Amino acid sequence: MARACRLVDDRVDGYLDLLKELFPHTGHAWIVGVTGNPGAGKSTVTDRLVELWRAQGKRVGVIAIDPTSPFSGGAILGDRIRMQRHFEDPDVFIRSLATRGALGGLSRSAVDVMRVLDAWGADVVVVETVGVGQDEMEVTRTAHSTLIVAAPGLGDDVQAAKAGILECGDVFSVNKADRDGADATMRDLELMVALGRRVVGGGQLTSVGSHSGAAMRRETGGVDSAGAWVPPIVRCIATQNQGIDETERWLEEHRKWVMDTQAGQERRHLRLREQMENEMRNALVDAAVRDIGNQLEEAIGSVSRRETDPYTACERLVAAFRKG
Amino acid sequence: MARACRLVDDRVDGYLDLLKELFPHTGHAWIVGVTGNPGAGKSTVTDRLVELWRAQGKRVGVIAIDPTSPFSGGAILGDRIRMQRHFEDPDVFIRSLATRGALGGLSRSAVDVMRVLDAWGADVVVVETVGVGQDEMEVTRTAHSTLIVAAPGLGDDVQAAKAGILECGDVFSVNKADRDGADATMRDLELMVALGRRVVGGGQLTSVGSHSGAAMRRETGGVDSAGAWVPPIVRCIATQNQGIDETERWLEEHRKWVMDTQAGQERRHLRLREQMENEMRNALVDAAVRDIGNQLEEAIGSVSRRETDPYTACERLVAAFRKG
Repeated sequence: MARACRLVDDRVDGYLDLLKELFPHTGHAWIVGVTGNPGAGKSTVTDRLVELWRAQGKRVGVIAIDPTSPFSGGAILGDRIRMQRHFEDPDVFIRSLATRGALGGLSRSAVDVMRVLDAWGADVVVVETVGVGQDEMEVTRTAHSTLIVAAPGLGDDVQAAKAGILECGDVFSVNKADRDGADATMRDLELMVALGRRVVGGGQLTSVGSHSGAAMRRETGGVDSAGAWVPPIVRCIATQNQGIDETERWLEEHRKWVMDTQAGQERRHLRLREQMENEMRNALVDAAVRDIGNQLEEAIGSVSRRETDPYTACERLVAAFRKG
Repeated sequence: MARACRLVDDRVDGYLDLLKELFPHTGHAWIVGVTGNPGAGKSTVTDRLVELWRAQGKRVGVIAIDPTSPFSGGAILGDRIRMQRHFEDPDVFIRSLATRGALGGLSRSAVDVMRVLDAWGADVVVVETVGVGQDEMEVTRTAHSTLIVAAPGLGDDVQAAKAGILECGDVFSVNKADRDGADATMRDLELMVALGRRVVGGGQLTSVGSHSGAAMRRETGGVDSAGAWVPPIVRCIATQNQGIDETERWLEEHRKWVMDTQAGQERRHLRLREQMENEMRNALVDAAVRDIGNQLEEAIGSVSRRETDPYTACERLVAAFRKG
């Protein structure tokens, strides 16, 4: 497994053949995105979720993209030691993509490694990211279910995530819920979810509040009467293992919605489309670098001497590459 | 100006012709990236810098990509009101790209709007971003000089930014330097800068400590004996206007290094190459969507029915598009 991941990650000769061969064995895994600002505690939440899934006998893969994640070897030593038990579990496979650098190919590698873990027989693949930026958004949007971990008192983190959070979050967890500001963070998230529903025109909630843990929960989530998913918001204290079982049950409920309903199917198809568009884009660029790499060099020289404007230069490059 | 920006931003018919026409009038502006986590205070630092540049008679453009920025209409009301004076100044032009959504085209729009501001006659164009993610990194890397604003007590923000910060930061500002943890943040940044220098093999510092404000500053930056730029780290309290003049002077020193030295020229060329690669990539994708959009639809269907694997499907799509 480690070798297959490395092959795919480093794009060693033959990696595409391997991925093609593995593809028929994929399609089983449930991909769960876990996203949140550094310091929100998403690694601790993930750690606890992995524990729950393992207790259910599920095989789990973890792809950590955040370089500060203890799963990537970052963060404080205590966390790393606690998560060590997962590293030693043969039914948990952890792969860090943190070292690949910021530019180019992060989302591509993540998708490829997801497929490797899927073919390995993972029941759940967790993809842990800091949820800001296009590349990360692309990764998050490949997930079937996305958990957003927020925490009070982390600057404007809710606001910062706002742009992407509404579309991407399926379950929200307000971690460190015993801290000052937890109520404000809950209110912010509730408002955002309500606004998002009004924008897309949601129906009435039907399966709200089906879970226990009333003291930690508000009745905000589930499938509404129009069949749409309304993100629940769960209070957590991950370090004390509070609210994690409820988070897991909501995620599971969302999994059923994605896998079994018409609306869920449509969403999966939409995500597949995005993914294919990304993959085509990457394949195009690879081919263009092979075919017209020399002309690109000339174009750069010409633009830097200000003989050509970059827009005209790009049009010429595309014309040199395309058939039509 | 506002109309030109909107035309370019919305890619209205004819926008490419406008950009081609404007290009010969560009090349004058100094592009300054200001990057940092939400809550670090980069908008306040930017606000103060704009004030200094205006006092020098410079014409200033601001492109705000962070949706929480007061320049984008986000953040708390007090900040927005303070920054209002810049909105009313005819020699300051502020453009927010915050509403363009997270996926696709953010860096492209930013580069185009930069060129519009450059042609308008801006002496300085500030691009304010939350410095995480590929798209944002791309924007940051189009800047001549990049200021990273950090602040103590914002979770693991320094660690989070680590991946990109070393390559992108030309000047570091530790804002809110009167808060607990400022010394630790300074130490972290100093260590990172030192590690970065060891990796690239820097020479001895020659122009270190040429500025005043000794109480607020450590001697860590300038041009070293090998001609390379070593990022200085400046303590700031932007709300009290402390450390901003020094930050501005270091940025100006960096501007001279980028514009006037051989090493700076090389860096500018490298950045231009990256930018052209990005622009070519975007132009390729636009053309592919026009030429083989239908085939892409078919491929998505085929992959979703699991008749084809996505890798083979992409190879076929590229083959349908390319000449070679």
